[in-house]
Amino acid sequence: MIVTIVHVWVAEDHIQDFIHATIENHNESVKEPGNLRFDILRDAADPAKFVLYEAYESEEASAAHKNTPHYLVWRDTVAGWMAKPRQGIKHTVVYPTDPSRW
Amino acid sequence: MIVTIVHVWVAEDHIQDFIHATIENHNESVKEPGNLRFDILRDAADPAKFVLYEAYESEEASAAHKNTPHYLVWRDTVAGWMAKPRQGIKHTVVYPTDPSRW
Repeated sequence: MIVTIVHVWVAEDHIQDFIHATIENHNESVKEPGNLRFDILRDAADPAKFVLYEAYESEEASAAHKNTPHYLVWRDTVAGWMAKPRQGIKHTVVYPTDPSRW
Repeated sequence: MIVTIVHVWVAEDHIQDFIHATIENHNESVKEPGNLRFDILRDAADPAKFVLYEAYESEEASAAHKNTPHYLVWRDTVAGWMAKPRQGIKHTVVYPTDPSRW
């Protein structure tokens, strides 16, 4: 399993646009084979800072996400709304290791 | 819902001890009322850097975790194994908002 934690800093005047576009990305991403989670979080202390928690069964499934139509639409849609470049950090899973618990 | 993302930097010579103690904390934490997830991740590029993804149904349930016997044992057990202080960052949940999807 692979979990990518994506840190996103959004321009103040596009926060609602970003939330809308990212929920659309969520709705399609969770249908991908190999997707385990796609959580959208907002920093409680910084309302312009978001986190995407993207869990996949394998490296291949995680990589395939970046070739999906919904990812490419999302990427291009939000491109002008970033306050600074996103940071995606890959993680292996220590626990739980059973995919049925994801 | 509240998700606390805890960033943990572990001393190289205590990584296996840390993993063992944190899986024990996981096993008890997921039994708490109001716990939704307690994932343990390891940075793919930095094997001494871990992330705990602690999701709770409410602020109260999240706060109650820090008074549980298993949390207090874990906190004291790992105290000497940190390479630098942990950072816990609280998040609200944008999506999915249905607790049954957690």
